[in-house]
Amino acid sequence: MKQDNDSEKLILVVNDDGCQARGIRHLARLMTRLGRVVVVAPSGARSGAGCSITPTQAVHLMRLGMDAEGIEWVSCGGTPVDCVKLALEHVCPRLPDLVVSGINHGDNSSICIHYSGTMGAVLEATMKGLPAIGYSLRTFSQQCNFLPFDQVVLQVASHVLDEGLPQDVCLNVNFPEVERLQGARVTRMCRGCWSGEWAPAHHPRGAEYYWLTGRFDNLEPEAVDTDNWALDHGYASITPIQLDMTAYRAMEALADRLTTD
Amino acid sequence: MKQDNDSEKLILVVNDDGCQARGIRHLARLMTRLGRVVVVAPSGARSGAGCSITPTQAVHLMRLGMDAEGIEWVSCGGTPVDCVKLALEHVCPRLPDLVVSGINHGDNSSICIHYSGTMGAVLEATMKGLPAIGYSLRTFSQQCNFLPFDQVVLQVASHVLDEGLPQDVCLNVNFPEVERLQGARVTRMCRGCWSGEWAPAHHPRGAEYYWLTGRFDNLEPEAVDTDNWALDHGYASITPIQLDMTAYRAMEALADRLTTD
Repeated sequence: MKQDNDSEKLILVVNDDGCQARGIRHLARLMTRLGRVVVVAPSGARSGAGCSITPTQAVHLMRLGMDAEGIEWVSCGGTPVDCVKLALEHVCPRLPDLVVSGINHGDNSSICIHYSGTMGAVLEATMKGLPAIGYSLRTFSQQCNFLPFDQVVLQVASHVLDEGLPQDVCLNVNFPEVERLQGARVTRMCRGCWSGEWAPAHHPRGAEYYWLTGRFDNLEPEAVDTDNWALDHGYASITPIQLDMTAYRAMEALADRLTTD
Repeated sequence: MKQDNDSEKLILVVNDDGCQARGIRHLARLMTRLGRVVVVAPSGARSGAGCSITPTQAVHLMRLGMDAEGIEWVSCGGTPVDCVKLALEHVCPRLPDLVVSGINHGDNSSICIHYSGTMGAVLEATMKGLPAIGYSLRTFSQQCNFLPFDQVVLQVASHVLDEGLPQDVCLNVNFPEVERLQGARVTRMCRGCWSGEWAPAHHPRGAEYYWLTGRFDNLEPEAVDTDNWALDHGYASITPIQLDMTAYRAMEALADRLTTD
């Protein structure tokens, strides 16, 4: 068992696919190269959880103990955001030096960040003033190969551990499903839109039910500085994301029309 | 029953507190002054749902019919975002001219927008290119008085119906719990932080459970241009919010360090 000492970095690992997902097992193992690792992950799949929290039920925390690699595993009955909140108050021996989330099975580029539990956990860590990174892979396969991305995963995490991130900013890292990356690009969120999102579900007594599905369209396919362009062309995308969603450019015109005393 | 005609505006009303909440009943009634109203709201409370979606269960849609005021009511088993997605594909006779969400019981200022189902629905409508507004009141009481805010609710909705909003921008409107507003201000998202967020829950067999709770701290209490300052001083806050969360100012420095080919 590794000792906690002042010089060793403490890294919290979370995800939205649950403790059992291959992505988080790979990520937690990789992070042991950089410091002491604590995992607090949902008890099962929480895909599409966004920044949701659990205000109306008590949330279960189950301490699973340390594995052979010295990683401490804790399962949480809540959402990815709940995992981070509980980890910081009731699991981690001190504030972590880094919070990483993933590796998600499915990419979280463009507007998908808003729905993403992977990035919900990252945003929560950012709200707590901690440097945080989300990692996602553009495939839903559980048989996917994470090895081609190890170098970028470690490079980005090491950079953030060494130099931190600007206040209220985190990173959203996405990988294309390739055997060999073209490289890594720092990108912006692509404009995109989902359509055709519901498939009728058969209900035995004829009630109206639908399954969520849909098609994603890139609304600016020619732009070369977006996360989607990078992924479409075999690059890892690294997108800095900020908590502040204020549309500053819209403020003045609105103030002229809507301010009252 | 009102007729659907080309000149009449179509307004979709959603929330995260569910069909039965007083806030949505008040808002839907108010909106009948501006056009034909369709409500698609969760079947029960979905507080803290953020932008979450339901990818792993079929979602129930139940058409409740039209009430005496000509408002069409539809209940949805999913999240607020699911409500908007289903409304647009399977309920509304055409794309709405406006989507409004609320009036939420509890404010959604500062970072709380990230957790907010009220604003999740608004962001979803924005992703679909529709003008959208969220309304929230700083109280959790079901006995609260919405009347002092009618004028601002209608003024903001009329403005957006007449003039639209910039691309990918929506409005987050919050009200303080007062009998008479000081006025309305166009604001930015305040920096803030939650702490002390978990209260231990008693479990009959001693398992480890926690209830979400906590205290919010305004991290810039002196700043007079924030949503929280406005609310603390008796004003309605009107914050323009954008979908794009890219931290543009962080891109260049990161690109120098993390770009690889």
